[in-house]
Amino acid sequence: MNELAGDDIIRSPTNSTLKRIRSLRLRRTRESERAFVVEGVRAVEDGLKAGGRAQVILLRGDADWRPSNSSGEVPIRRVVPQIFDELAETETPQPILAVFDFPRLIPETSLAPLFLVVDGVRDPGNLGTLLRSAAAAGATTAVMAPGTVDPYNGKTVRAGMGAHFRIPIVSLDESLRNTIIASCPIRVLAIASAELPYDRISLSRGTAIIIGSEAHGPSNFGRSLATCEVRIPLENGVESLNAGVAGSVMLFEAARQRRR
Amino acid sequence: MNELAGDDIIRSPTNSTLKRIRSLRLRRTRESERAFVVEGVRAVEDGLKAGGRAQVILLRGDADWRPSNSSGEVPIRRVVPQIFDELAETETPQPILAVFDFPRLIPETSLAPLFLVVDGVRDPGNLGTLLRSAAAAGATTAVMAPGTVDPYNGKTVRAGMGAHFRIPIVSLDESLRNTIIASCPIRVLAIASAELPYDRISLSRGTAIIIGSEAHGPSNFGRSLATCEVRIPLENGVESLNAGVAGSVMLFEAARQRRR
Repeated sequence: MNELAGDDIIRSPTNSTLKRIRSLRLRRTRESERAFVVEGVRAVEDGLKAGGRAQVILLRGDADWRPSNSSGEVPIRRVVPQIFDELAETETPQPILAVFDFPRLIPETSLAPLFLVVDGVRDPGNLGTLLRSAAAAGATTAVMAPGTVDPYNGKTVRAGMGAHFRIPIVSLDESLRNTIIASCPIRVLAIASAELPYDRISLSRGTAIIIGSEAHGPSNFGRSLATCEVRIPLENGVESLNAGVAGSVMLFEAARQRRR
Repeated sequence: MNELAGDDIIRSPTNSTLKRIRSLRLRRTRESERAFVVEGVRAVEDGLKAGGRAQVILLRGDADWRPSNSSGEVPIRRVVPQIFDELAETETPQPILAVFDFPRLIPETSLAPLFLVVDGVRDPGNLGTLLRSAAAAGATTAVMAPGTVDPYNGKTVRAGMGAHFRIPIVSLDESLRNTIIASCPIRVLAIASAELPYDRISLSRGTAIIIGSEAHGPSNFGRSLATCEVRIPLENGVESLNAGVAGSVMLFEAARQRRR
C-alpha cells in the first residue's frame, strides 16, 4: 500500500504500466499475457470479491477508493486525471481501472451440466449479456466457438458485470467438443426457422444450449453439434430477438426446469 | 417520387427538413409534433411494412434504396453525404433515415391482457430491449410510468427493432391505472428481494408485469400497483440482471404459460 504515496502518482503517458494497459486493449496481447482490463468501481470490487487476482489497480487523480480486505497486496497507483481519462475506454470514465489475470475457474463436474455454447456472436455487448445470464442461470461452463468475439473485450467485460469471475469461459477445441457430446445428451440450437418451441423439450439432463450469430445464424459446427433445433415463438410480426435475449430466455428456461 | 430528381438534392445544413429532424432529437419536440426519427435500412423498411406512416425519407448521397409498395406517396429526399452523416445519430450511419408519425395502435381488447409496465427504467437500450421482447412475447400494451426514459429516443427506437410499430406504447395516467387494476388480477413486480420465484405464479389471466429501474428499483407507484412480488432465482453469486433481460425472462414466462 506504500504505492499510494503522493510522489508516486503517474504523470507520464509513456509510463510502462500505462503502456501495458494500452497493449491489453489488443486481443493477441490479452491472450499471450492471460490478462485483461476491468473498468469501474463496481466491476473491480466485484472481481476482487469473486476471488479474481488483480495485478495492479489504477485510480484517477485523488479518487476516493480504498481496497477491501480481499484485494490483499495488490499495488495501487494513482494517475493524473487527464492521462487516466485517455486510458479509459468508456466515455464517462469511472475513477478506477484494474488489470486482472484471466480467471482459472474449473468447470464443475456435474451429472447434469449446462453448457452455453456461443457460436459466432459478434456483438461484444450481446456476448456480455449472454455470460451474465449464463452465470445467473447456473450454467456450468460458457464455451466460445470459433468466430465469436473475444470475451475479454472491454465492452464484453463491462456488460458481463462480473460473470467472467463466476463461470468458466473456455474456447472450443476437439477435446471439449467430445466432452460436450459425452456429457450432454441434449444439445439444442436456437433458430427462428425451427418447428419445436423451446419449452417443449426437457433441459434437465446434461444440456448444451447453442446460440448462433445475430447476423449469420449458426455455423456448420453449431448445426452438427446439435441434437435438435428449437425456436422461441414470436408474436406481433416480430422476426427475431437479439442473441443476448434469446440466449437468456433459453438459459432461464433450463434453470426453471431444473428447479422443479 | 419526382423528388428523386438530381437537382433536388439537399446541400445546405440549414435546409428546413434537416432543421426539423434536428429538432426531433428533443423529447419535447417529438411530443408536441407526435413524430420521431428512425435510422437504418431495416428499421425504416420494418416501420413501413408494419403500417407506420412516414412523413419523409432521406437518403445519403446516391444510396441505392427503392421504396417498396408500402411506402406509397412518401416524399424521398437525397442529402449530400457529409451533411447526412452529421444528421445521423449513429457513429457508422446507415444510408437512410425517416420521420414517422407516432404510431396510433389501439390496445387489443382481450379477456386476458398482458401489460408491460416500465417503472422508471433510465437506460434507452434497456427500454428498447423491453419493448422488442414485449412485442415478441405477445404483450398487449407497453405502459411507461413516470420517470421512464422517452420511448421515442433514438437509441430506444434502434434497440426496439420495429417494436414501436407493433405494440401500443402509452403513458401511464390515472385512467390507465384504473384499467390495469380492473383488467389484471395479477400484477407482479420483479424485484431481487422477493421470496417467490417468478415461475411459481400463474400469469395466464389478465397480467401486468412491472419492471423497475436498474439503479433505483421500483417506485412507490410500482409497489402500490403490484399484487405480488417475485424474483428470478440467480446462481453463482450473481446479484442482478439488467432490466432488459429480467423483463424479457418474465414476459416469455407469461407467453409460455399462455401457450399451454
